[in-house]
Amino acid sequence: MSARSTAGQVIRCKAAVAWEAGRPLVIEEVEVAPPQAMEVRLKILFTSLCHTDVYFWEAKGQTPVFPRIFGHEAGGVVESVGEGVTELKPGDHVLPVFTGECGDCRHCKSEESNMCDLLRINTDRGVMLSDGKTRFSINGKPIYHFVGTSTFSEYTVVHFNGVLNNFRGLGATLNVAKPTKGSTVAIFGLGAVGLAAAEGARIVGASRIIGVDLNPNRFEEAKKFGCNEFVNPKDYDKPVQVRRVHGKHQCHDLCAMISAFECVHDGWGVAVLVGVPNKDDAFKTHPVNFLNERTLKGTFFGNYKPRSDLPSVVEKYINKELELEKFITHEVAFSDINKAFDYMLAGEGIRCLIRMDT
Amino acid sequence: MSARSTAGQVIRCKAAVAWEAGRPLVIEEVEVAPPQAMEVRLKILFTSLCHTDVYFWEAKGQTPVFPRIFGHEAGGVVESVGEGVTELKPGDHVLPVFTGECGDCRHCKSEESNMCDLLRINTDRGVMLSDGKTRFSINGKPIYHFVGTSTFSEYTVVHFNGVLNNFRGLGATLNVAKPTKGSTVAIFGLGAVGLAAAEGARIVGASRIIGVDLNPNRFEEAKKFGCNEFVNPKDYDKPVQVRRVHGKHQCHDLCAMISAFECVHDGWGVAVLVGVPNKDDAFKTHPVNFLNERTLKGTFFGNYKPRSDLPSVVEKYINKELELEKFITHEVAFSDINKAFDYMLAGEGIRCLIRMDT
Repeated sequence: MSARSTAGQVIRCKAAVAWEAGRPLVIEEVEVAPPQAMEVRLKILFTSLCHTDVYFWEAKGQTPVFPRIFGHEAGGVVESVGEGVTELKPGDHVLPVFTGECGDCRHCKSEESNMCDLLRINTDRGVMLSDGKTRFSINGKPIYHFVGTSTFSEYTVVHFNGVLNNFRGLGATLNVAKPTKGSTVAIFGLGAVGLAAAEGARIVGASRIIGVDLNPNRFEEAKKFGCNEFVNPKDYDKPVQVRRVHGKHQCHDLCAMISAFECVHDGWGVAVLVGVPNKDDAFKTHPVNFLNERTLKGTFFGNYKPRSDLPSVVEKYINKELELEKFITHEVAFSDINKAFDYMLAGEGIRCLIRMDT
Repeated sequence: MSARSTAGQVIRCKAAVAWEAGRPLVIEEVEVAPPQAMEVRLKILFTSLCHTDVYFWEAKGQTPVFPRIFGHEAGGVVESVGEGVTELKPGDHVLPVFTGECGDCRHCKSEESNMCDLLRINTDRGVMLSDGKTRFSINGKPIYHFVGTSTFSEYTVVHFNGVLNNFRGLGATLNVAKPTKGSTVAIFGLGAVGLAAAEGARIVGASRIIGVDLNPNRFEEAKKFGCNEFVNPKDYDKPVQVRRVHGKHQCHDLCAMISAFECVHDGWGVAVLVGVPNKDDAFKTHPVNFLNERTLKGTFFGNYKPRSDLPSVVEKYINKELELEKFITHEVAFSDINKAFDYMLAGEGIRCLIRMDT
């Protein structure tokens, strides 16, 4: 199918549909409606599985929205654009993102925030913003979207402003914790986001980069991202805390977030939460931990404004300052997408590249 | 008694002793031992009652340490100095402080922290650091110190480095929350510390300064400190939160601290905790409140390093930039010290000046 022949038409293509929570995805033929005003239809070339997909697919402690097409890390090319889209045209290479930047709201106009009022992530919404409908269907039955991206499909429709990727760990370090050269950083949870946070600490020249994970297989991998010390809480009889971390601190594993906060150094320690909490999660600590001059911050998407800030991150990659290849440890064909789930659930590797053309 | 006649001698003088939790203080004749190495004996000229004294005097949720001499806000003059004290001499006018600055530890050397390893506040300790003994006694029976100051006595002995006052509310605004001109600040709890925080917001030119208190009598007083909007949670049937505060935010009332944090604006809001928690207090919130890019910090003594930073605060007062007189709403003789407790427990006024010479 060329862009010319499909614009304005329903496209029939393959997508990996999650029919039920926790059950293997099924490759189905789906209908993908044309993009409406301010929307863009993309042909996905590569996608990848992130723990956030798994989280909402398992739907433990999250609102179940099914049937649904998951996927939010991808690269693709614009197939056609809806009315009013002037900044993108068919053939443009893009990275869809699960959050947007309308450019007009107080958040977009603030230097500090990236929490766009209009296009902020909404994990419970399975429909498009403009008309409250889905662009995916199977024989007319709607299939729900996921965080505005749904990249586990050969074609997907996204809001034009949500087009660009998972740099949130990197941003958590570079934009939020802001460790300086020579400082100490601890990372709780060495998944892709945690390793991206370590990569940020490596880039700024932190001297101690402490990786904390329950899975010791992670430690060898983490060395490539600058981690030079490791703690496995399972090696200890008592609950372990990396006591008195002098510098900054990342946490993307919510089970560990309280430990992460409580172990930053009094006087100057900063803990940054990065992750997806369960509905009934609670952050609980004694207030004296704050009064002893610790700071706790959270970040969404590493405080990056997708349109304004991500081009400079891509530039860092092109200049080889940021090393992305080392994140890709596995590769599967789209038809084998469930293998990517198996790798992640087994804690194997970091990112599994899913090739749409095979 | 002149300084010459009493140096090296035990001084017998009047002190207000708290014999039991929650019972009125009793003016007793006490013995005050001479200062040991690195200690200073002070003649107190004026003192004042702070809610922190009341907190530890009530000893609800705190370790009871009795009999004890409370008091930590005062002005006095050096009577004599112990061995090794070269920076102070008899006759120097000083402000004792409940925290110190040794100048040598990592905290004193850090630009960010004032949590001196050696002289950090310890509310459970009732003795001097050097020998673990008290300098106060009645017929040889030890009377315990409070936070290294014990200013409810005509004479007191303090560590030389803990000499200088309660500017923690001011510092919470100027050093920690750091609101900018035109921003919005909400203050939860309009006691002296909260009003000092408002004073800080007034000094930096915040445009909205919202006072939150259960006692409406506070609101008229608070106008002098720049507060221009008021919220009394008692006026509402439902739990009230100052939703979507755009700027920064102070909280020194721990009952209100969770509300204070949860109502700062997502994207850029900063909440600062200032206060004394109970032993079994817990700060509890949903982690998504952090992930939506709010920041929670605590501060001890407004992040001021007592020796390094307080002279510049005194200078602000001398230059009439900082208005301290308006904090003093009542005045009593030392013999009437229990009236100061009555005013505070009734929520009347801000600070009651206690004159030692009457």
